[in-house]
Amino acid sequence: MYTCDIHQRIRYGETDQMGYVYYGRYAEFYEIGRTELIRLLGMTYRDLESQGILLPVVKMVARYYRPAAYDELITIRTILRSLPTARITFFYEIYNEAGDLINEAECQLVFTDSATRKPVRPPKDLLDALKPFFTSRVNS
Amino acid sequence: MYTCDIHQRIRYGETDQMGYVYYGRYAEFYEIGRTELIRLLGMTYRDLESQGILLPVVKMVARYYRPAAYDELITIRTILRSLPTARITFFYEIYNEAGDLINEAECQLVFTDSATRKPVRPPKDLLDALKPFFTSRVNS
Amino acid sequence: MYTCDIHQRIRYGETDQMGYVYYGRYAEFYEIGRTELIRLLGMTYRDLESQGILLPVVKMVARYYRPAAYDELITIRTILRSLPTARITFFYEIYNEAGDLINEAECQLVFTDSATRKPVRPPKDLLDALKPFFTSRVNS
Amino acid sequence: MYTCDIHQRIRYGETDQMGYVYYGRYAEFYEIGRTELIRLLGMTYRDLESQGILLPVVKMVARYYRPAAYDELITIRTILRSLPTARITFFYEIYNEAGDLINEAECQLVFTDSATRKPVRPPKDLLDALKPFFTSRVNS
Repeated sequence: MYTCDIHQRIRYGETDQMGYVYYGRYAEFYEIGRTELIRLLGMTYRDLESQGILLPVVKMVARYYRPAAYDELITIRTILRSLPTARITFFYEIYNEAGDLINEAECQLVFTDSATRKPVRPPKDLLDALKPFFTSRVNS
Repeated sequence: MYTCDIHQRIRYGETDQMGYVYYGRYAEFYEIGRTELIRLLGMTYRDLESQGILLPVVKMVARYYRPAAYDELITIRTILRSLPTARITFFYEIYNEAGDLINEAECQLVFTDSATRKPVRPPKDLLDALKPFFTSRVNS
Repeated sequence: MYTCDIHQRIRYGETDQMGYVYYGRYAEFYEIGRTELIRLLGMTYRDLESQGILLPVVKMVARYYRPAAYDELITIRTILRSLPTARITFFYEIYNEAGDLINEAECQLVFTDSATRKPVRPPKDLLDALKPFFTSRVNS
Repeated sequence: MYTCDIHQRIRYGETDQMGYVYYGRYAEFYEIGRTELIRLLGMTYRDLESQGILLPVVKMVARYYRPAAYDELITIRTILRSLPTARITFFYEIYNEAGDLINEAECQLVFTDSATRKPVRPPKDLLDALKPFFTSRVNS
C-alpha cells in the first residue's frame, strides 16, 4: 500500500448555492491527490506526459458522506492498494478539519500512448519506485 | 421508465490539455440532464428548492468510454428506472455526434429538508407525475 | 458591426454559495458567445485551430450589474465593432429572462500561429466574411 | 499599501486544450488571493459572511501576458492600494516559477448587506486592521 496526504483549502468558486462544495468539483481533489502521490515517488505526472504517456480516467466512483464548506482545510488521502498494470486505481478518503471522513472515491486510469492512443504498460521507473511498497513478505 | 434527452455543445473551457472534456466536468452534464428530466415532468428543480427541498448527491458512478471534443454536440440521456423513495437514482447515457455511447453514469440523490437537513419523502406532485410511467401492468 | 445572440440556461454548478452565478464562470459565457458568432459567419473556431491558429485571450474586462440565478435562461449577445487585425475584440451584453442587462464585457484575443506562438494576421476567409458588415458607406 | 503572497499549484483541470490554464480560471486565483489577504489581517471572509456581509464582484479587469502550465507553482500577489469605502479594489500580480509576471488584474467588490442586498460600509475591525498600513505621513 502506498499513501499520500495533501491539504487543500476550499475555494468560494467551488461551492454552489446549497452552501457546500459542488459534487462535480471533487474530481479536481482526486486529481490533486494522484498528482501529489506520483510526486512523492520522485517523479511527476507532467514528466509522464512529456514522455508520451497519458492517463485518461476510465471510471470514477464517488461517495459523498458529509458536505465540505468554503474555507475549510480538507485532507485528501490518496491510496494505491496494488501495483498498476495497464490500469492504475487510486482510492481516496477526504477528511474535513474536524477529522470526519466526508468523501470516499476510486478513480481508474489507463496508461495510454499519446501517439497511438493505445493502452501501454506503466513506465518502468514508476513500477520500480512502487515495488518496495508492495513486495510480499517471503516466509523462511 | 422515464427518459429525457438534451443536447449540449462542448465548451472550450470544458476541455483540458489532453484535448478532450475534463473528466470532472461530466458531473455538470448529469446535473443538466436531471434538471431537464424534472422540467419535462412539468415542474422544476428550482421550485423544489423554493419549497424547502434540497437534493444533494450521495453517490456518483461514471464510466468513460470515449472522449468528447470541443464544439461537439453531445446528447445527454437521463433515465429514471424506478420510482423515487427518499432516494432518487438517475442513470445517464451520453452520446457524441456520431451516435457513439461515450459515457455512462449513475447519480444517487437524497430528498432533504433544507431546514432540518434530514431525508424526507419525495414531493407528492413529483410522484404523481412519475407514477403513470411506472405502473405495473395488471393481469386480467 | 456584427452581432450574435445565443441563449444559455444557468447550471447549478455555476452558482456559488451567494446563490448566484460565480463571477469566474462568465468567462465561459463569453467563450460560448464568440464560438457562436464565428459559426454564424459560416466557419468554426474548431476549424481555425485545425488550420494552426490559436486565439488566446490577452485581456478581459467584465462588469457585473445584476446577478444571474440557477435555471435562468440568459441571452449572451456578442458584438464585433471593428474588423480584426492581429487582435480581435469581442464585446458582450448579457441579459436575464426579464430582459435586464446584467453584465457587460470585452475580451481581446490575438490570432496566434500554433507552431511559432507568434501573432499572425486573421484568416482571409474570416475577414472576407466580416467585411460586408463593416464597409464604410460611400457618399455620392 | 497592503500585500499578500500565496502559492498555488496549477491543476490539470484548470488547463484547456491550448495546453495552458483556461482564461476563466484565473478568477479563482484572484478569489484565493483576497481570501488570504483578509486572513493575514486576522479575520476571514467566511466570518464576514456569517456577520451578514457579502462581497459580490462588480468589476474585473484581467491582462494575460504569458500562459501558466499544468503543475507550475504560481505566486498570487494581492495588493490593496487604498482603504476600502463601500467598494474595495484588489489588485493582482501573478508570477510563474521562473519569476515572470504572467498576469495582472483588478477586482472591485462591494460590501453588501446580505439581508437587504444594499451596499454598506466596511466592517470596523477590517478598517482598523488596515489603517496602520495606509496612515498618511504627517509633516512636521
